[in-house]
Amino acid sequence: MINQTVQQLDVALSERSYPIYIGTNLLDNQIILQRHIKNQQVLVVTDSQIAKLYLNQIMAAFDGYQIASLILPEGEQHKTWATLSLIFDRLMALRHNRDTTLLALGGGVIGDLTGFAAAIYQRGVDFIQLPTTFLSQVDSSVGGKTGINHPLGKNMIGAFHQPQSVIIDTHTLSTLSARELSAGLAEVIKYGLIGDMEFFTWLEHNMPGLRQLQPELICRAIRLSCANKAKIVAQDEREQSCRALLNLGHTFGHAIEARQGYGQWLHGEAVAVGIVMAADLSVRLGWLEAVLARRIEKLIAAAGLPLSPPTDMSVAEFMHYMATDKKVLQGRLRLVLLNGLGKAHVTADFDIRLLEMTLERFCS
Amino acid sequence: MINQTVQQLDVALSERSYPIYIGTNLLDNQIILQRHIKNQQVLVVTDSQIAKLYLNQIMAAFDGYQIASLILPEGEQHKTWATLSLIFDRLMALRHNRDTTLLALGGGVIGDLTGFAAAIYQRGVDFIQLPTTFLSQVDSSVGGKTGINHPLGKNMIGAFHQPQSVIIDTHTLSTLSARELSAGLAEVIKYGLIGDMEFFTWLEHNMPGLRQLQPELICRAIRLSCANKAKIVAQDEREQSCRALLNLGHTFGHAIEARQGYGQWLHGEAVAVGIVMAADLSVRLGWLEAVLARRIEKLIAAAGLPLSPPTDMSVAEFMHYMATDKKVLQGRLRLVLLNGLGKAHVTADFDIRLLEMTLERFCS
Repeated sequence: MINQTVQQLDVALSERSYPIYIGTNLLDNQIILQRHIKNQQVLVVTDSQIAKLYLNQIMAAFDGYQIASLILPEGEQHKTWATLSLIFDRLMALRHNRDTTLLALGGGVIGDLTGFAAAIYQRGVDFIQLPTTFLSQVDSSVGGKTGINHPLGKNMIGAFHQPQSVIIDTHTLSTLSARELSAGLAEVIKYGLIGDMEFFTWLEHNMPGLRQLQPELICRAIRLSCANKAKIVAQDEREQSCRALLNLGHTFGHAIEARQGYGQWLHGEAVAVGIVMAADLSVRLGWLEAVLARRIEKLIAAAGLPLSPPTDMSVAEFMHYMATDKKVLQGRLRLVLLNGLGKAHVTADFDIRLLEMTLERFCS
Repeated sequence: MINQTVQQLDVALSERSYPIYIGTNLLDNQIILQRHIKNQQVLVVTDSQIAKLYLNQIMAAFDGYQIASLILPEGEQHKTWATLSLIFDRLMALRHNRDTTLLALGGGVIGDLTGFAAAIYQRGVDFIQLPTTFLSQVDSSVGGKTGINHPLGKNMIGAFHQPQSVIIDTHTLSTLSARELSAGLAEVIKYGLIGDMEFFTWLEHNMPGLRQLQPELICRAIRLSCANKAKIVAQDEREQSCRALLNLGHTFGHAIEARQGYGQWLHGEAVAVGIVMAADLSVRLGWLEAVLARRIEKLIAAAGLPLSPPTDMSVAEFMHYMATDKKVLQGRLRLVLLNGLGKAHVTADFDIRLLEMTLERFCS
């Protein structure tokens, strides 16, 4: 029986369209879990932390299937080929075929690894996202970006591969730490900033309630984030135009993550600082009113997120890591910058000295 | 100046359509080589053998570009992640961006590795095929199948990623060994068998001339093979229906290659035996006249190819390796079988005891 309170959104991508289900206790909902499985073979991929909490109930929901599980080490530092190959080794040992389905049970790292494995195992098999962290529920599980890190750059090896469905069980947030919640809120704030001023204002009013994990507020934040992302992905699946807006704060943020070593800063923490820096540069360029930049900083602080990079990170280090970003085209660094609350654009057309001034402010 | 004798075929895949150029000395033809390069960054990937012969002229053709080269070890045993990661390391060290173009200069292994690297570097960049072996010119450079081997199965990790163009310089065949020529002829014969009876008959009449490398015959064999493949790929890019016909002989052949260790038998040699075995099974099923199976065996022998698997390979070994094939669906082995010369179909609907009889004939 489908729970009455399940909400459904759709990512409209013609033959690759898929639903996002949001509700409580969906990891027990056999109908929704099984709905998009084509055949008998299923491999659940998860990490040691999540396995303790939810693996048994998932395995039970697939009674009668040829189901197996694989528990990977936990953390961004394991988003590597070495970990990915564990998935292939298991699939090959179990003789899973092109009609297998992989279930990604966990946070963004598990989703990226499992989705990428599905993208390239036998040149592409099905997978389903079962995100269990706030960050993956509001952002990374939707849109089909999958991949692993290269020692010299984050997410440098990967594929666009859409899941068959995304199943968001908000009950999993009951074990969420305050730090992880804040990290997820960075991406939520991003959705307001790039295209939904009303959502941004709503966040300003409801941040305390969100940080107290009030269920109806959390559910609304997830739904609006997913809806905003689904709209953008439907317009530009392979990031040739507007999808790049989703990278607001990410070029600065990736530089922090790469410099610190993956796993030291949470992704959302680095993105939060990146958003503050992008807002600062937008003000310097005369594109954003200073008063709006202050509202952004205030909301990010209210979410419990940092406002500045590691104290010992230099301007030169920022420039070095930013130059390796995937958004560099024809040798020019492109950034997502703001024109207002809910208005952003991607541009390489800015004075590099103003970028240096922004970096100097934050690196002093 | 474009050489008058350049022939052009097109692979019709809407926004992913691309041309195949066939002619002599195209590796010197700056206009054709540069035509599909979007920007300044170019990386030539090749192997130690091919580098000696053609790398200098390719580098010279891109004077003024930000061009670099990478020389990989030679052979199917290197179609692994370890080799692939050398490409990523070089791209990252040189800070190649999403607008880079990779050139695959070499045979099938170089094409598969370079194409797969292009498929997943920064979630997809451009690449161009410059096939220098007969096998890669008649088959593997066209159609966008890319990938690497897993210790337990060939081409198990990969992607569909179409090149921007395929540039076939028949002058490169002057260094071809008789064994490599024969290996390529196995795939040429396959194109006749699966859909072009006239081509098959033409091959029966012209096999001696082909083996003497008569230029007009070789050129025609390449053109008809590419045209047959382009037609099939245009209908079914991702192998959900008719493209599977291209695997005639490959399920048996992959079992031989995997059992022998990659690189021991040439791919075309294994496919040749696979075609003979598929014809034998087709006869047992009553789908192919015995006299036609004998014509097939005769043509394969005339091409200088083997007619039977390694003498010490057992029925059990065949069954073991065939069960891991990508064409296994819902636990059933599917094979490409023949209904005549120029007529084939994919089926799981055959008596497994007849398959065993075929294996017993060839493994006794």
